[in-house]
Amino acid sequence: MAKKKNAFYAQSGGVTAVINASACGVIQTARAHKDKIGKVYAGRNGIIGALAEDLIDTTRESAAAIALLRSTPAGAFGSARYKLKSLEANKREYERLIEVFRAHDIGYFFYNGGGDSADTCYKVSQLSEAMGYPIQAIHVPKTVDNDLPITDCCPGFGSVAKYVAVSALEASFDVRSMAKTSTKVFVLEVMGRHAGWIAAAGALIEDHGIPVVVLFPEVEFDEARFLARVDTLVKQHGYCTVVVSEGCHYPDGRFLAEQGTRDAFGHAQLGGAAPVVANMVKKALGHKFHWAVADYLQRAARHIASKTDVKQAYELGKAAVQLALKGHNAVMPTIERLSDTPYRYKIGMAPLAKVANVEKFMPRNFITRDGFGITDACKRYLMPLIQGEDYPRYKDGVPVYATLKNMAVAKKLPAFELK
Amino acid sequence: MAKKKNAFYAQSGGVTAVINASACGVIQTARAHKDKIGKVYAGRNGIIGALAEDLIDTTRESAAAIALLRSTPAGAFGSARYKLKSLEANKREYERLIEVFRAHDIGYFFYNGGGDSADTCYKVSQLSEAMGYPIQAIHVPKTVDNDLPITDCCPGFGSVAKYVAVSALEASFDVRSMAKTSTKVFVLEVMGRHAGWIAAAGALIEDHGIPVVVLFPEVEFDEARFLARVDTLVKQHGYCTVVVSEGCHYPDGRFLAEQGTRDAFGHAQLGGAAPVVANMVKKALGHKFHWAVADYLQRAARHIASKTDVKQAYELGKAAVQLALKGHNAVMPTIERLSDTPYRYKIGMAPLAKVANVEKFMPRNFITRDGFGITDACKRYLMPLIQGEDYPRYKDGVPVYATLKNMAVAKKLPAFELK
Repeated sequence: MAKKKNAFYAQSGGVTAVINASACGVIQTARAHKDKIGKVYAGRNGIIGALAEDLIDTTRESAAAIALLRSTPAGAFGSARYKLKSLEANKREYERLIEVFRAHDIGYFFYNGGGDSADTCYKVSQLSEAMGYPIQAIHVPKTVDNDLPITDCCPGFGSVAKYVAVSALEASFDVRSMAKTSTKVFVLEVMGRHAGWIAAAGALIEDHGIPVVVLFPEVEFDEARFLARVDTLVKQHGYCTVVVSEGCHYPDGRFLAEQGTRDAFGHAQLGGAAPVVANMVKKALGHKFHWAVADYLQRAARHIASKTDVKQAYELGKAAVQLALKGHNAVMPTIERLSDTPYRYKIGMAPLAKVANVEKFMPRNFITRDGFGITDACKRYLMPLIQGEDYPRYKDGVPVYATLKNMAVAKKLPAFELK
Repeated sequence: MAKKKNAFYAQSGGVTAVINASACGVIQTARAHKDKIGKVYAGRNGIIGALAEDLIDTTRESAAAIALLRSTPAGAFGSARYKLKSLEANKREYERLIEVFRAHDIGYFFYNGGGDSADTCYKVSQLSEAMGYPIQAIHVPKTVDNDLPITDCCPGFGSVAKYVAVSALEASFDVRSMAKTSTKVFVLEVMGRHAGWIAAAGALIEDHGIPVVVLFPEVEFDEARFLARVDTLVKQHGYCTVVVSEGCHYPDGRFLAEQGTRDAFGHAQLGGAAPVVANMVKKALGHKFHWAVADYLQRAARHIASKTDVKQAYELGKAAVQLALKGHNAVMPTIERLSDTPYRYKIGMAPLAKVANVEKFMPRNFITRDGFGITDACKRYLMPLIQGEDYPRYKDGVPVYATLKNMAVAKKLPAFELK
C-alpha cells in the first residue's frame, strides 16, 4: 500500500457562488479517507499560497465549518489570478513548488479553476515526469463562463444562469409596469468575456412572455439591426429588455465597453456595455431607459444558487479526490449529460491535456438565426442547469456564510520572492 | 346604511418588490366586504387609467391570481409617473376624474405610491369639498426610498434593503477572495435620489467583518477624505467595499452621476456613480476595481424580499380599505414602531395633508460622524425591516409570478386627451 500523503487544494481565477461547495466536496471526501490522505492543506490565495509556502491547515476547521462551505459563496481560502509560465520559461517556480510539496509531504494537488487554471494544473501534473517529484494533479472545474471543453457544463455557471434568468424576469416585470409613461427599455449587462452562455440564460425569459434581445459575444454587433429589433419589440409590446454580454463587440473586435485596462492574465478588463447600449437606444429611438451592470453580484449570488449547480460542484470536488485515490493524474472530472428530460448525468473524466487553454463557445445552433435569441436546443441545454433552489440559512436578515479560521501551517523553508 | 360603491385602485411611481402585495391586501379585503364595496377597478397604468377611462375589472381575476400578487414584484396593473397639477392649474383633469368616477359609480380611491403620489391622492381627496363629488381617497404608502414622513417605514424599502445587504455581503466575500492578486475595491451603486436609506443597508455588512464605505446623498462628497478612507481600509484589510447612493453629490449639488436627462416629474435621471467612484479610486490609489449598478434589479428582487416588508405591504393595503370602510378620507395608513427588540409595530393613520410632498431624510444621528457609515441607532432601526424570507414558488428554475388578464371595463364616456 502506498504511503499516506497530504493533499494541496487551491482556488484559482474568478470565484463563483459554488466553488466552496467543490472545496467542501474535496475536504469532506479526503477526511473520509484518512487511511490514504493525510491533511488537506489549502493554498492561501490560490497557487500563490504554494509558492509562498503560505498553507492553510484545513484540519483546524470543524466539520460544521467545512459543511457550511457548501452554502458559502466566493473563495474561502482566497483565490488568485496567477498563471505559471512554462517549465522552460520559469523553472524556478516549479522547483519551488516541489520544495514546498516535499517539505509538507504533499502528493495530491487539487486545483479548482477554469481554463487558465487547467493549464497550471496540467503543468504541475507533469512534474513527476519532468522533475522526478511524484505528484497527482487533478483539476476541479469551475467557471461561471461555462467555457471549459469536454464537460457538459461547469460548476458556477448554473447558478449565475439562474441569477440572470430570475433577475432579468423581475426587472422585465418592472419595466413592463413603467413603460406607459416612463422607462421602455431595460438593459442588463452580464459576464462572459468570449462565450455567451451567461447572456443566453437571459433569453429564457422569452418563454414568460417577455420581449428580450440578447447581444452575444459570438455575434458581431450590428447597431442598425439591433436598433431595428428594439424598435419592433417596443412597438409590439410597449417595452423590451436587452441582455448584453460584457464581451459584445464590433466586427473589428472592439468591445462595446472597452476600458483600456487589463487583468493579470492579459485579458482586457471590461464593463460598461449596458450604458453604451442604453444611450444608443435613447439617441436613435428616444426611449427612456434604465440599465444595470450585475458584475460580481451575479457570480456571488449564493442566495439564489441553482440546486443542480451546487450538487454538481460538490460531486466534482468529491470525484476529484476519488480519481486521485484511484491513481489518476492530469485529469479533470466532468459532467456527462445522459438526457435532457428527465435530466440525467454521470461523472466522467477528461485528460487535462485536452482541457487546458481550450475555450468552448456557444454552438451556432444554440443562437437563433437573427443572432438575438436562443434556440430550443439551447433551452433544452440550459433548463436543467437552473433547476432547484438551495437556500442558505439566514440569521439577522442575511445568509450565514462561513468565514474560516484559515490558520497557517508552520513554514519550513526560506522565503520565496514572487516575480 | 350607505349605498354600496365601487373602488378604484392604482399603482403610481416607481414600482417595488411588494407593491402587488399591497394590491393583494386591498383587493382581498374589498372582496371580503362585498356588502359595502362593489367592484374594485384598477387603473391601467396608474392614474392614466382613470383619466383615459381605461379601467381593469379585477373581479375577472380568480382568487388564486389575486393571492399570487402577494409574491409578484412590480406593478401588475401598470404604474405611471404622472402628477396631477393643482385644481387651479388643470381643472379639466379633475372634472374628467369625476366624470369617470360617476360613470362607474366609484366612491373609494386607493392610491398606492410615494411622496408625489400622496400629493395626487390628497388632491383627489379634496374633490368632495371642492367639486361636490363624494369620494374617499386613501393613500397606500409605497417607496423603496423610504422617504415618506410619519410612517416608521415604507413598504418596498425593507426588501430593497435586504437585497442590498445580501448582495453587498456576497460581493464582498468575492472581492475578499480576489484581493491578493486582483480586485481590491468593489463599488456597488444603489438607489436613493435624496435619502440614503438604501445605501445605509449596505453598511449592515460591517457587522460581518467587511470593511465598507458608504456614500450618502445626505453627506456632501469629499473626494480627498473618501480616498483616504479607502486607502486606510485597503491597507488594513487588503480590500474594501464601497456602497454609493445614486444621489451622492458634490458640495455644489452636482451629482457624481448626472446624465443630464430628466424624468416626467422633472427629477434628474441618475445612474453611473459607481464607475465614477471606481475610476477615482483607480486613478488615485491604483487599485484594481469592479463595480455594479443594481438599478431595477434591487427594487424588483421579489426572490429575496423581506418577510417583514411583504407582511407590512399587505397589511397596509388591507388597512387602507378598513379605513375607508370606517369613513375616513385624505389619510394614509402607517407603520408605528412600538419596539426594536423584539420588533413590534401597529398600524396607525396619518393625514395626507402632512404626507404629500414631504421627504424624510436619514436623521443625522443615523450616520456616523465621519459620514461613511451608520450608527447603532440606525442598525436598530434597519435590522427588523430585513428580517425573514418570503420565497416565491418556483417552476422551471424561476419564480412563478402573476401576469393578470387585466380585462378592460367597457367605456361609457367619450375619449379624453391627456396633455
